[in-house]
Amino acid sequence: MLVDVPKDSDFSIHNLPFGVFSDSKNNNPRPGVAIGEKILDLGILARHGLFEGCGDFSADAKSTFEQPTLNKFMSYSRKEWRFVRQQLTSFISNDQHPVRLDMPQGGLEALVNQKDSKMHLPCTIGDYTDFYASKEHATNVGTMFRGKDNALNPNWTHLPIGYHGRASSIVVSGTPIKRPLGQRVLTPGSPPMFGPSTKLDIELEMAFIVGKGNDLGSPIDISVAEDYIFGLVLMNDWSARDIQAWEYVPLGPFLGKNFGTSISPWVVTLDALEPFKVDLPTQDPIPMLYLADDKKSGYDINLSVSIKPQNSSCFRTISNSNLKYLYWSLKQQLAHHTIGGCNMRPGDMCGTGTISAPTETGFGSLLELTWNGKNKILVADAKSSSDSQDHYGYFLEDFDTVKLEGYCEANGIRVGFGSCVGQILPSLI
Amino acid sequence: MLVDVPKDSDFSIHNLPFGVFSDSKNNNPRPGVAIGEKILDLGILARHGLFEGCGDFSADAKSTFEQPTLNKFMSYSRKEWRFVRQQLTSFISNDQHPVRLDMPQGGLEALVNQKDSKMHLPCTIGDYTDFYASKEHATNVGTMFRGKDNALNPNWTHLPIGYHGRASSIVVSGTPIKRPLGQRVLTPGSPPMFGPSTKLDIELEMAFIVGKGNDLGSPIDISVAEDYIFGLVLMNDWSARDIQAWEYVPLGPFLGKNFGTSISPWVVTLDALEPFKVDLPTQDPIPMLYLADDKKSGYDINLSVSIKPQNSSCFRTISNSNLKYLYWSLKQQLAHHTIGGCNMRPGDMCGTGTISAPTETGFGSLLELTWNGKNKILVADAKSSSDSQDHYGYFLEDFDTVKLEGYCEANGIRVGFGSCVGQILPSLI
Repeated sequence: MLVDVPKDSDFSIHNLPFGVFSDSKNNNPRPGVAIGEKILDLGILARHGLFEGCGDFSADAKSTFEQPTLNKFMSYSRKEWRFVRQQLTSFISNDQHPVRLDMPQGGLEALVNQKDSKMHLPCTIGDYTDFYASKEHATNVGTMFRGKDNALNPNWTHLPIGYHGRASSIVVSGTPIKRPLGQRVLTPGSPPMFGPSTKLDIELEMAFIVGKGNDLGSPIDISVAEDYIFGLVLMNDWSARDIQAWEYVPLGPFLGKNFGTSISPWVVTLDALEPFKVDLPTQDPIPMLYLADDKKSGYDINLSVSIKPQNSSCFRTISNSNLKYLYWSLKQQLAHHTIGGCNMRPGDMCGTGTISAPTETGFGSLLELTWNGKNKILVADAKSSSDSQDHYGYFLEDFDTVKLEGYCEANGIRVGFGSCVGQILPSLI
Repeated sequence: MLVDVPKDSDFSIHNLPFGVFSDSKNNNPRPGVAIGEKILDLGILARHGLFEGCGDFSADAKSTFEQPTLNKFMSYSRKEWRFVRQQLTSFISNDQHPVRLDMPQGGLEALVNQKDSKMHLPCTIGDYTDFYASKEHATNVGTMFRGKDNALNPNWTHLPIGYHGRASSIVVSGTPIKRPLGQRVLTPGSPPMFGPSTKLDIELEMAFIVGKGNDLGSPIDISVAEDYIFGLVLMNDWSARDIQAWEYVPLGPFLGKNFGTSISPWVVTLDALEPFKVDLPTQDPIPMLYLADDKKSGYDINLSVSIKPQNSSCFRTISNSNLKYLYWSLKQQLAHHTIGGCNMRPGDMCGTGTISAPTETGFGSLLELTWNGKNKILVADAKSSSDSQDHYGYFLEDFDTVKLEGYCEANGIRVGFGSCVGQILPSLI
C-alpha cells in the first residue's frame, strides 16, 4: 500500500472520493482523491500516464485534471469515472504498479497531507435544486403549521417536491456563515420588522452532483438515471425560519435560504456507495411510470448533526439520522426534474431536503428538534462548558459551530463523507 | 455617420445595446453592439485601439471583447461601460474619427449585417431569479384563485416577492420551446394524470442583468444599486399553468417553469434608458429603509405581446403593457435580493415578473387575458388565416409563435429592445 489508512478513516481504499484542493507548495486549486489522511494529486498521476488506455479520455486526462474544478471530469460518462477509480485502486494497493516503479519516489510525490491543504468547491455549480423528499420531515413541518390531519399536501406522495435554490451562495465546508438580516414578523399578525434572523436553523441534507448532462427537451429516463449522477456530498441548507415564514407564500423560500448553503468537499461516487444500497421505504400510491424505480434504490448512510457553542470545548451530537429514510430516491428526483424537458449540466447539484429519522432523536433541523422553539435542547453539557453549566438552546446563536457527518459501514468496509462544518458569525447590524 | 439608421429602428445611436453574435465568416460567438441593421464587432474595434485611454480596462479591452460572452465586460464598473458607449458614439457619428481614418475601409470592416448573423445568449447566467413585482398581475392572479378580498398576500406590499428560477434552460430569442410533459390534475379533486401541459402560457417580462457583483454577506445598498445593473432585456417566462398549479405548494414553481425561458439577445444599458425614467407608482405602505428608493426609478418602456398561430400569415397583438406600471423598482429588487447577504455575480439575471397594465388590454399572460381559460381571445382574424375564419384561443397551441417587443420613445429619440420570439413545438408524446 502506498498509504497507511487508519481503520476508522472515512477515506478507505473502497471510497476514493473526488475533490479540489490547493496547498502552500502549489496554490492552484486542482483535482485530487482522498485516501486516509492524504490526497492524491490527479494532475501528477495523469502526467505520469496512469490514465492511459481509456479511449478519448486518456488523450484528455492531463487537461481534465489540470482544471480548477471537476466539471470536465464529471462531463465524461460512468465508464471513465470507473476507469479512473480502478486505476487509482491499483496504483495505491499494488507496490509493483508500473507507474509507481517509474516515478522517482515510487508515487509518494503525488501525495499531499490533507491537514496541509485547503479544500475548494469540487465544481462550478451551474444550478442548484433542493428537494423535500423526506416524508418524516415534511410530515413534521406540516403537522407544526397545519395540524396532524393536513400535514402532507395532496401532491407530496405523487411527486418529489422540489424548488430552485441559489447556486452563487453555495460554499465549501469551513466557510463561516453570517447571520442574515431581513424582514420577519415577531408576533403573529403584527407588521414585519427589519433585523437579524432570530430563528437561524440548520437542515441536515445530502446532495447529488450531476455528471453527464442532458439536452433541453430530452428527459433522463429513470432506468439510466444513475449514469447521470457523479456522486454525493453532505449539505447543510442553513435556513432563517422567521424570514422564510414571512416571505414564502406563494413562490417558495428565497432570502430565508439564499444567504448560504454549505457542502462537504469530497464527492463520494455512486460506485463507492453501491455496497450500501438498501430498499426504499414503501411508496404509496405506486408512483407513475416515469417515476417507477427499483426497490433497492436507497442508501444506508449514517448521518449526524453536532453543535459546538462558543463557550463549549467540544461538539455535542444533537441528531442521528440516515439517508435510508428518504422516501423519494435520488433517481426519482432526477427523473422528475427533467421530465418536463429541463436540462442538467455537469456539476449541477440537487439536495435531498432535510433528512429526518422517524423518531425525534433523528430529526434533521432545529425547527423539528425544538418543535418550532417550544422545547429547548441540550447543546453543551456542564463538563464541556467554560462556566460549568448545562447549556440549552432553540435556534443557532452567534459563534455556534455546526458539523454534519456521514458514513456507511458494512462487512468491515467503511466509506465516509468527512464532515460539513460552518460557524455562525454575527449579522452586519 | 458610419451607418444609416432607419428612423423607426430600435437600435438608434442613442441605444447601442450589447450582445453576442456569430456569422458565416466567423462562427465564434463574440461581443457586438447593434446599430441600425448592422452589428459592430467589438473585438475588431478593440484591436484597432478604440478603447485606449481608460486605465486598466484599456489594457484588457482586447481580451474582454474576444470572450464568447459579455461576462468579463459586465464585471467592470459603470465607468468602463460608459466609456465604451462614448467611444462607440464618437466612432459611429464622427467621420473624421482617428481610429476610422486609420482603418483600411474607414471602419466598415467592423460591421456585420444583423440578418446574416446568429445571436447567442449575451452572457453566462450563473443564477436567475424571477420577481413578482407587478401589483396588477399579482392582484389578477390572487383574485382568480383566492377572490377579490384576499387577492394580495399580506407580504406583497412589504417586499418584492421573488423566487429562484432555473438558469440552464434560459434560451435566446428564436429557440423553439417543446411543450412540457408533467403531472396535472384535469378536474379539481381528481388524482393527477401524466401528459403534455394543456395550459401552456406566456409571461410578458423584462429582466435586468447584473454587472458588477457583490461578496457573500455584503448587501448592495439601494443608493448604489444602479451601478450594479448592466442593462435590460425582454423575457418570456413560459409557464405550464396546469403543472404549476399541482406542484407549487409549498415550495413554489418548479417544472411549471423550468422547461424554458426566452430572452431577447440585445442588452440595453441603463444609460441608454436614462432619458425614459418616470415616477414609480405610489408605494403604500412606505417601504422599509433598505428599500427606500428615489421616486423617479421607473422606466417608460412600451411592451407588447403578439401571437401567430400555425394557420396565420401574420402576428396579432394581444396585449400592450409598459414597464412603468411595475410597483417595485429594479433597484428595490436588487437591494432586497442581497439584503440577507446573497451574492450576485456578473451576468446573473433577475426577471421582473409578469408586467400587467391596469386594464385588460394590457394583461401580460394568457392566464389573465382569458381569465384562466374562461374567455377566449382572438389570435388570428379571418384575413390572415389560411381558412378565412377568425381563430380564438385560450392557451398556447402547438406551432404558435409568440413575440414580445419593447421600446422607449421621447423627443424623437427611439431606444428599443428588438424582439423576443419563440415557437411552441409538440411534446415528446
